[in-house]
Amino acid sequence: MTQAEFPAPLRGPIVNLPASKIREISRVGMGQPGVIPLWFGESDEPTPAFIRQAAAAALEAGQTFYTPNRGVPELRQAIVDYLRRLYGIDMSLERITVTASGMNAIMVALQCLVGAGDNVVMVGPMWPNAAEVVRIMGGEPRFADLTPGPAGWQLDLERLFAACDGQTRAVFVNSPGNPTGWMMPAAQQAALLEFCRARRIWLLADEVYARIVYGRPHAPSFLEIARPEDPVIAINSFSKAWSMTGWRLGWFTAPAGLGDIFEKMNEYNIAGPTSFAQFGAVAALSRGEPYVAALVQRLGAARDLVQQRLGAMRRVRLVRPDAAFYAFFAVEGMQDSLGFCKEVLARANVGLAPGIAFGPAGEGWIRLCFASSIERLSQAMDRLQPVLD
Amino acid sequence: MTQAEFPAPLRGPIVNLPASKIREISRVGMGQPGVIPLWFGESDEPTPAFIRQAAAAALEAGQTFYTPNRGVPELRQAIVDYLRRLYGIDMSLERITVTASGMNAIMVALQCLVGAGDNVVMVGPMWPNAAEVVRIMGGEPRFADLTPGPAGWQLDLERLFAACDGQTRAVFVNSPGNPTGWMMPAAQQAALLEFCRARRIWLLADEVYARIVYGRPHAPSFLEIARPEDPVIAINSFSKAWSMTGWRLGWFTAPAGLGDIFEKMNEYNIAGPTSFAQFGAVAALSRGEPYVAALVQRLGAARDLVQQRLGAMRRVRLVRPDAAFYAFFAVEGMQDSLGFCKEVLARANVGLAPGIAFGPAGEGWIRLCFASSIERLSQAMDRLQPVLD
Repeated sequence: MTQAEFPAPLRGPIVNLPASKIREISRVGMGQPGVIPLWFGESDEPTPAFIRQAAAAALEAGQTFYTPNRGVPELRQAIVDYLRRLYGIDMSLERITVTASGMNAIMVALQCLVGAGDNVVMVGPMWPNAAEVVRIMGGEPRFADLTPGPAGWQLDLERLFAACDGQTRAVFVNSPGNPTGWMMPAAQQAALLEFCRARRIWLLADEVYARIVYGRPHAPSFLEIARPEDPVIAINSFSKAWSMTGWRLGWFTAPAGLGDIFEKMNEYNIAGPTSFAQFGAVAALSRGEPYVAALVQRLGAARDLVQQRLGAMRRVRLVRPDAAFYAFFAVEGMQDSLGFCKEVLARANVGLAPGIAFGPAGEGWIRLCFASSIERLSQAMDRLQPVLD
Repeated sequence: MTQAEFPAPLRGPIVNLPASKIREISRVGMGQPGVIPLWFGESDEPTPAFIRQAAAAALEAGQTFYTPNRGVPELRQAIVDYLRRLYGIDMSLERITVTASGMNAIMVALQCLVGAGDNVVMVGPMWPNAAEVVRIMGGEPRFADLTPGPAGWQLDLERLFAACDGQTRAVFVNSPGNPTGWMMPAAQQAALLEFCRARRIWLLADEVYARIVYGRPHAPSFLEIARPEDPVIAINSFSKAWSMTGWRLGWFTAPAGLGDIFEKMNEYNIAGPTSFAQFGAVAALSRGEPYVAALVQRLGAARDLVQQRLGAMRRVRLVRPDAAFYAFFAVEGMQDSLGFCKEVLARANVGLAPGIAFGPAGEGWIRLCFASSIERLSQAMDRLQPVLD
């Protein structure tokens, strides 16, 4: 529809909002019998029972009322404790806001920072949603893209700095990165933080894959180096490390002194997170370490399998990801990733995500989520072999 | 803090966002021993057991994955069926979006409609949050206020029309209204709809109190008269009629043909509503009528008690509300409603909401939520008597 055909005018940025190209594929294949869906960033296991039971117990106990806007004190304290254990830092409770997902945390943060005429410099290829929020707020997303090399994906920081101008309100970094599995080195993090400090540009650190790393307890985090007064908003989620995608719970940490503002912003976006679900999240943080360890071990085995099988296919160029749960690979001779994913869906009955969904720098590439069982992944590899070899 | 003191700049509208004056009172009184809290718009009863059990069963069954952006098909179909039973209308599934609360529905809708330079005309006194969302989006809320009279609150439609200009993107009507209990007559609804149609202005109908009415099954609804192509977005919530405030679930209906846009907007705001909670909402709609009837009966008795006791106090001027669960009353000689609520909290240990929280037209008035037990309300009346008589 065009503006004239709408019942009444809609804002320009909304009318022009692109649809998710991952959803475009999944909509075609969702009902296809026997399809192996590796398109979404989601484990194929339900949330662990002890977390589900904690939420069910809260329901049973009648925890069905409004909670404080920024979450129940128990959960915010559990986040403080978690950050201390993980990073050895002392984060004050006042700096923590529980949100209705990592996605919602990005929305709340960007509402505070970006208006018409502003821009946000983002490291691509990236999960597209954060860029769409910039557009919803009337701003312009700019991309400072990673480049693939033999040693993995690399960020040219100077190029990122050069992309910033007087209207740049934020730099958005998702590390470990979706779809690439790129992990920003600590030294680069320090340099970027220094730049943002000096230029008074917000640093939005999307760290939802912080725990999905191989051979180390966590990825380098901006939280390890930021001071309380630094312009850093670090976003996290319960979705990935605790397999809680359907729960819609995340959190962010912000500089000291801004608690009142985020209390209002949560009030006007969602009022507060789902009450009883928050008690599941408390269980996840306080008793979830064995689960996270087992999940990462399982994912590591999946990564090895995919690396070995997919990496051996002749048309595939694949860098072993350091983190997250995606194989992001180039396919020789392939230029239309969306069309290719449709072809794979039709010929192999495997659901993949097209690289173009992650920005122009993703064209030519394909994302496969390996948060799945070895059996299922093996079967997917068998099916992909004729197409990719 | 000022802009110069922030770690990096925040948008002007965010810095200037007023804090909720209800929260200002509740923060003082929340920990006060023995306080009777009648400040929030929330029943003092937990969600009925059959709804909680339905969500617990979904948790047990592993319903913990991402759902479709606009909600699970079961819930959207349950909403279609509910609207057919209640209003005798045929709403197509495509027009229904499940949201993370009524609040979030307002946020999603206003993101689509309002940018810098735009305005929204709102019927006041009103729950302040919708006006704050207009400000967050860079727009200007304008108020067309109800006036109190012997026959209840009255809306002067001509004044509302006169408040609209070329930059008016929407008219926001909350009927039945919080805090007034005002119910917009069907004839006024028809005239306003006609005006919005002709002027191509969106009509945002916040109908979350549609079922909390006395002596009739529901309030007049714009859904009864709007055609599928009309610029009407009708917002509802599970919070009030099914006592599900903590669940953070609501929905809206929109004109035909806009489903793709709202699918994207839900994706970029919350991705989707909480998975297992949605199955509780299915139970609420499909098996909740006896509960709603009993709730309204209980609220009716509470309304009678408050009307009788509060109405007899000499300083109080009170109109019997037709709907919702608030007594909204003027206090003779009182000009500072926030200060007065603080005084009542200190002297009587009862938590009330100051009228100024609902816009300038609310000054001089006080809101009391009577969604509480007769025993508790009687005690509150005993305590208020020395202050108000």
